[in-house]
Amino acid sequence: MNSSIHIVLVETSHPGNIGAAARAMKNMGLSSLRLVAPARYPHADATARAAGADDVLAQAAVCAGLDEALAGCQLVIGMSARRRRLSSPVLSSRDAAARVVNVTAAGGDVAVLFGRENSGLTNEELDRCQFHVQIPCNPHFSSLNVAAAVQVMCYEMMLADVPSGPGSEVPGSPTLATADEVEGYYDHLQEVMIQTEFLNPEQPGILMRRLRRLYNRVQLEHEEIQILRGILTSVQKFRGKWLV
Amino acid sequence: MNSSIHIVLVETSHPGNIGAAARAMKNMGLSSLRLVAPARYPHADATARAAGADDVLAQAAVCAGLDEALAGCQLVIGMSARRRRLSSPVLSSRDAAARVVNVTAAGGDVAVLFGRENSGLTNEELDRCQFHVQIPCNPHFSSLNVAAAVQVMCYEMMLADVPSGPGSEVPGSPTLATADEVEGYYDHLQEVMIQTEFLNPEQPGILMRRLRRLYNRVQLEHEEIQILRGILTSVQKFRGKWLV
Repeated sequence: MNSSIHIVLVETSHPGNIGAAARAMKNMGLSSLRLVAPARYPHADATARAAGADDVLAQAAVCAGLDEALAGCQLVIGMSARRRRLSSPVLSSRDAAARVVNVTAAGGDVAVLFGRENSGLTNEELDRCQFHVQIPCNPHFSSLNVAAAVQVMCYEMMLADVPSGPGSEVPGSPTLATADEVEGYYDHLQEVMIQTEFLNPEQPGILMRRLRRLYNRVQLEHEEIQILRGILTSVQKFRGKWLV
Repeated sequence: MNSSIHIVLVETSHPGNIGAAARAMKNMGLSSLRLVAPARYPHADATARAAGADDVLAQAAVCAGLDEALAGCQLVIGMSARRRRLSSPVLSSRDAAARVVNVTAAGGDVAVLFGRENSGLTNEELDRCQFHVQIPCNPHFSSLNVAAAVQVMCYEMMLADVPSGPGSEVPGSPTLATADEVEGYYDHLQEVMIQTEFLNPEQPGILMRRLRRLYNRVQLEHEEIQILRGILTSVQKFRGKWLV
């Protein structure tokens, strides 16, 4: 669990949102939650929505003001749904996550501020931030639920913190078929299609090419070839019986 | 608003999550919500948590089953928190979003499935998906709230959907098969395998699941389905002749 990124919720009204934020943080490997003057906390709704992230809630620091919540942080950034007239630099959530991770990788602490459900962060609070963060969204409906915004930012920070990015390869992958196993399947398939008169051997046309193109896209596995050839063999065995 | 990406919530227990999902969708510019057998809906909690996304809720389709929810979709993907033993390819949320946008850019429809709060999607439901999607997260606390998962996926799909302007469609790209065409093929294949006694209908085992997993990986095209079913029909026609 990463404890050098501090999620700071400012004057949250609904305790359910605090619980949901704690859950989102723990899902993304973060543990430090700081609550500035929450309206109602602790509260059963917070615990219910935390759904197993009770440890994050239990360790949460309730702070009287921003000074306390930002103590020890080298970088302070604040979420902002709208463009302010007189504003600090604005970064997207993805770019902001990269900056955060640069600071924590160098041993620094970072605070990420999320404002009130109805009105966000005040100008004074945003002035405490080195930059503002906007989550790209529908310009006609741009206000995310505060816990949803925490989810998106924590997700981006988690991804930014993985050096090579999330791979889509998964260990324990099944054995792929060899090229000759695949060729053996094509031969077998062609043989059966000729036997059922689906394919005219005098005029093969582009049928085999279409089928090759289909199965080549799959990257067939060894076991799958066995199943496919098992089906073909069952057709041929039946042909024997049916012909008798 | 993008209406060709359909967010499908399967048997959601808490109506609040439905409302929060609608809000997350609208924040990210999506409008089509399909609810499969929700426990309680419509419900005041859904409306409250939608917080201005009432239009998305009002247009939501309540479906009796998956067939209805997936109708007309060329690509079906499902969220999965854990690695299954016998599993389709798994993509990260970011990689999955890129695939989704490829399909919608070519004029196709996509369904993104989210499972129950407690138990996610069943194996049978996941077998309907061309691939599974995992949101990178803390391996020791990997179950996101369903609306939070909707938020992350919709966010990624919005970012992936960088408008490339007119003329960005790939000319002559083949038409992908719809979910119901693919289901029709599976039914036909199963019928033939029973007729050739390759599949014992009393003990289907995991054979159909293995075959679904294979063909789901391909993203079958409309024409390919016609070829594959043509082969099956030729076997059945021959069975008729052979039996005479």
